[in-house]
Amino acid sequence: MEDKFAKGLENVIALESGISFIDGEKGILEYRGFDIAELSKLSYDQVSYMLIMGKMPGEEELEEFSDNLKELRKITDSAFKVMRFCNYNIEAMDALRTTISYMSHCDPDLNDNSPEANLRKGMKMIARFPTVVASFSRVKNGLEEIEPDPELSHGANFLYMLRGKRPTDLESRILETDFILSADHELNPSTFTARTITSTLSDIHSSVIGGLCALKGPLHGGARMEVMEMVDEIGTVDEVEAFVMGKVQNHEKLMGFGHRVYKTYDPRAKVYKKLAKQIAEERNDMLWFDIAERIETIAYREFVQNKDKPIYPNVDFYSGIVYKYLDIPPKLATAVFAIGRISGWIAHCLEQYSDNRLIRPRAKFIRSKL
Amino acid sequence: MEDKFAKGLENVIALESGISFIDGEKGILEYRGFDIAELSKLSYDQVSYMLIMGKMPGEEELEEFSDNLKELRKITDSAFKVMRFCNYNIEAMDALRTTISYMSHCDPDLNDNSPEANLRKGMKMIARFPTVVASFSRVKNGLEEIEPDPELSHGANFLYMLRGKRPTDLESRILETDFILSADHELNPSTFTARTITSTLSDIHSSVIGGLCALKGPLHGGARMEVMEMVDEIGTVDEVEAFVMGKVQNHEKLMGFGHRVYKTYDPRAKVYKKLAKQIAEERNDMLWFDIAERIETIAYREFVQNKDKPIYPNVDFYSGIVYKYLDIPPKLATAVFAIGRISGWIAHCLEQYSDNRLIRPRAKFIRSKL
Repeated sequence: MEDKFAKGLENVIALESGISFIDGEKGILEYRGFDIAELSKLSYDQVSYMLIMGKMPGEEELEEFSDNLKELRKITDSAFKVMRFCNYNIEAMDALRTTISYMSHCDPDLNDNSPEANLRKGMKMIARFPTVVASFSRVKNGLEEIEPDPELSHGANFLYMLRGKRPTDLESRILETDFILSADHELNPSTFTARTITSTLSDIHSSVIGGLCALKGPLHGGARMEVMEMVDEIGTVDEVEAFVMGKVQNHEKLMGFGHRVYKTYDPRAKVYKKLAKQIAEERNDMLWFDIAERIETIAYREFVQNKDKPIYPNVDFYSGIVYKYLDIPPKLATAVFAIGRISGWIAHCLEQYSDNRLIRPRAKFIRSKL
Repeated sequence: MEDKFAKGLENVIALESGISFIDGEKGILEYRGFDIAELSKLSYDQVSYMLIMGKMPGEEELEEFSDNLKELRKITDSAFKVMRFCNYNIEAMDALRTTISYMSHCDPDLNDNSPEANLRKGMKMIARFPTVVASFSRVKNGLEEIEPDPELSHGANFLYMLRGKRPTDLESRILETDFILSADHELNPSTFTARTITSTLSDIHSSVIGGLCALKGPLHGGARMEVMEMVDEIGTVDEVEAFVMGKVQNHEKLMGFGHRVYKTYDPRAKVYKKLAKQIAEERNDMLWFDIAERIETIAYREFVQNKDKPIYPNVDFYSGIVYKYLDIPPKLATAVFAIGRISGWIAHCLEQYSDNRLIRPRAKFIRSKL
């Protein structure tokens, strides 16, 4: 056992994977060899299939996969009951964790870890995450749940169940792209958590629940919500300079900027910026987009120009702006992220099961920590 | 980023910790500098305090801590309701995961990550794990739940709630020791999972739930159950030789033997062996102990003598025998393990929060995994 270590396992390779490739210097993200910008134009079902099955689906394969997901969208009355019962002073991530945990109890495949059973369980979770999140949001707001609509895409159906009316074509397209951009990101903490759980040969529901537990944290999936709240707090373009400079002078973190792996512009942020502009124009309301762009300009001046360690917008920055235009409440943002990320978790769990080694690092004992 | 890596992070130091020290060559386990064999004579509350607070409690401190835990043992009617509602074809680890997830919703400190709030939430979970596990077991068997008895120790009270009658002094002592021996073990997969979740600054309930998700796996907490089932399968001392040699010849794993870290006798196994003998003698029934000792003798001959990589009994071996004498059903074994381990998880989460760095390793992309 070596004595030195990298705090937070920074730059330490934990395993081999054929799912995501990141080049943090050049700003490249690929899922299974496909560039993220190209993938963002496809359907979520297509990218989900590709992540999980390891290849792009043919036309018939995609249709079957997509039809299966649509059929699996509904959740049972007893799951609704647990969710209503859960409806204390909690947010969607708590409800999602408890409801998925409960739903596992009713799954006949619960402790069957065969690839076939894991695929079945994974598809049910992919199909039902949107239903749970949308239903929870409506129940919390005193509204009736809305049944999933099998005519709609994964993204459009989520917005429909959330709002009770069908979204515009642009909104549907944006949600599909959002789910795709959120679907995987190599060994981020939630995916690494899911794989560590899988490595004990625990069941795949447990792995996904562990993923949810990690994604909830503000240093992970929770950051998007904070970007949305920051934009609200700033309120006008004129206030941006003072706000950002306040953060700079107090050495406080600017939400939505900086990333462990990317040392340049996050390739997902580029796509989200385009989407933010499109939806701002459709809504005929540039306010939030203009605030965001102004933040970016000042951040570039302060964090990039003449800096040794430049800090760029990350995935949470313009995605937060997009969510604002879509009327997604800030407190729902992490759970919407989870709806996209679940496909990546499933793909990573299946990969882990297929060539498993228990993930069990060591700690260095130091008395000064006592 | 280096290109080489250790599969399963074997021997990779992930972080510094002042909680457990393991010397895998010499067979030493210490919690905060105290040898495990010495600690095993104390009360669970005392060791729990020491793990979490970082020092041995004084008499008054221990009394206050212990009284607090006793007051917190009861769970609410609504938690019982969720548990009864859960009672499909599941086992205690599933019920524990869902019930703790639900119970977090009702905790006023849910998203308060201050050390004080985390300690409060941690103590509630330590106090209530036994109540949830015992109640689930009774509900599943069609029996009424039994209220916790504040006159009994942590271990004795668990057995009382499980069985409906007070345990003997030896049984109570054994349960206390069992919980102590299970309380921590450095960066085992469930503790590492809990710390990874904490590193995102998620809430401590989420960290503990992640720990439960990992502990459930048969390569982790699930192994004890398999030892118990193996002993049942063997049935008599005379059958041991053929059984073990069958495993050897088929290159199959012998349950309860071998460990990632220990290259010698697991120091916890030594204590469990003594307890197993004591309870066998009290019960006046040496069968299971004799079977276990015979397995050990043959395993020593096959796996230790003249071997480069000797394999010794691990913690799950004689603990499984102890559980058999205590009439703990095999399918409850992992959850009983969790009742002990929760104190370690809480201590590790508090340590992680106090000097946090996001745990986010990298994957090496390889196309051949596609």
